[in-house]
Amino acid sequence: MHFNNEELGKLEDRYRAKLINSLSGFKSANLIGTTDGKGNHNLAIVSSVFHIGANPPLVGMIMRPHTVTRDTLENILELGEYTINQVNADIWKESHQTSARYEQLVSEFAEAGLTPEWLDGVKAPFVAESRLKYSLLLRQSQTLEINGTVLVIGEINNVLVEDDVIANDGYIDIEALETVAVSGLDSYHVTNRLGRLSYAKPDKKPDVID
Amino acid sequence: MHFNNEELGKLEDRYRAKLINSLSGFKSANLIGTTDGKGNHNLAIVSSVFHIGANPPLVGMIMRPHTVTRDTLENILELGEYTINQVNADIWKESHQTSARYEQLVSEFAEAGLTPEWLDGVKAPFVAESRLKYSLLLRQSQTLEINGTVLVIGEINNVLVEDDVIANDGYIDIEALETVAVSGLDSYHVTNRLGRLSYAKPDKKPDVID
Repeated sequence: MHFNNEELGKLEDRYRAKLINSLSGFKSANLIGTTDGKGNHNLAIVSSVFHIGANPPLVGMIMRPHTVTRDTLENILELGEYTINQVNADIWKESHQTSARYEQLVSEFAEAGLTPEWLDGVKAPFVAESRLKYSLLLRQSQTLEINGTVLVIGEINNVLVEDDVIANDGYIDIEALETVAVSGLDSYHVTNRLGRLSYAKPDKKPDVID
Repeated sequence: MHFNNEELGKLEDRYRAKLINSLSGFKSANLIGTTDGKGNHNLAIVSSVFHIGANPPLVGMIMRPHTVTRDTLENILELGEYTINQVNADIWKESHQTSARYEQLVSEFAEAGLTPEWLDGVKAPFVAESRLKYSLLLRQSQTLEINGTVLVIGEINNVLVEDDVIANDGYIDIEALETVAVSGLDSYHVTNRLGRLSYAKPDKKPDVID
């Protein structure tokens, strides 16, 4: 099947949204924990979190200002701190439920059946049920003029992870944590490792190292 | 295990790179096809491709100017067009091999054992072995001052995909295509679907729709 530019433009909106959202490949599944500083907590599932750099440790995400993540974005800009919590196979349905359009003062934690967890010195709530989570300080937010979405970049200042999934070289086995991946807008997946590969060099084929 | 800000700063560089790269969750695995317009083709695996918007259809990626994707970035800026090709389970090792530091005039297609494929009117090569691929026109490139990486945004102008994996609602079953996901810097995974979930609404739990 070949869709050219003109054919893509003629697709019905919801059909195009599902088709185009499938193209980037598998996406991360994360819950963004925030608070408004007045005791109102928000939790929103986001599939657009991506790695930007390791030193300093930077993570980015794309937010849509006119969707249900609006409260989350406002909280991040207001407080300057937020948490990212990996979604795992025990909480994939609860996590999806946070994408419903709740009223502003309703806590998605309570509605979805997830538990806020606090760490001394961090203003935003973690998700107790998540097995790999971290807090970030807001470093940059920028509206992308091309479509009005907002690029949010944070620097990681605390990482919480189960001990026994960190390999000797620092790699975290997120498959062992049953972290899920997303495809399209609404499909959730667990994974089976094909293998880890050695650092690629021009004159040899990569070795499977795990 | 808890790493605070100070402890993260003291980690050995390669250890930190592997640890921090595991935090964003599962990543997409894509091959970026480019040419310099003089018959020299480049192919580079990238795990930072992400969805930005469906209308117009926009995809972003983060590139590091001083790594092996430098030629790819220069080609994109020069020609203004490139392809993104999903990596599948039949070509995961070949795809990883494109990350080796080949000389500038060496084609990663030939070295990795992958086949360039051309579509009339598109200046950049696709990967014949990829089962879901698309071409993009460069819309924006911007250096992120915070760490010197480059955000590249393209608009999709052609999509090539096998017919029988497109659902009635537009969702593409990339699991059926054996598209792989990446974790950390070097771990490759196939997937098992937990399910697709219905659009979330405040007063009901989501249904599994697939």
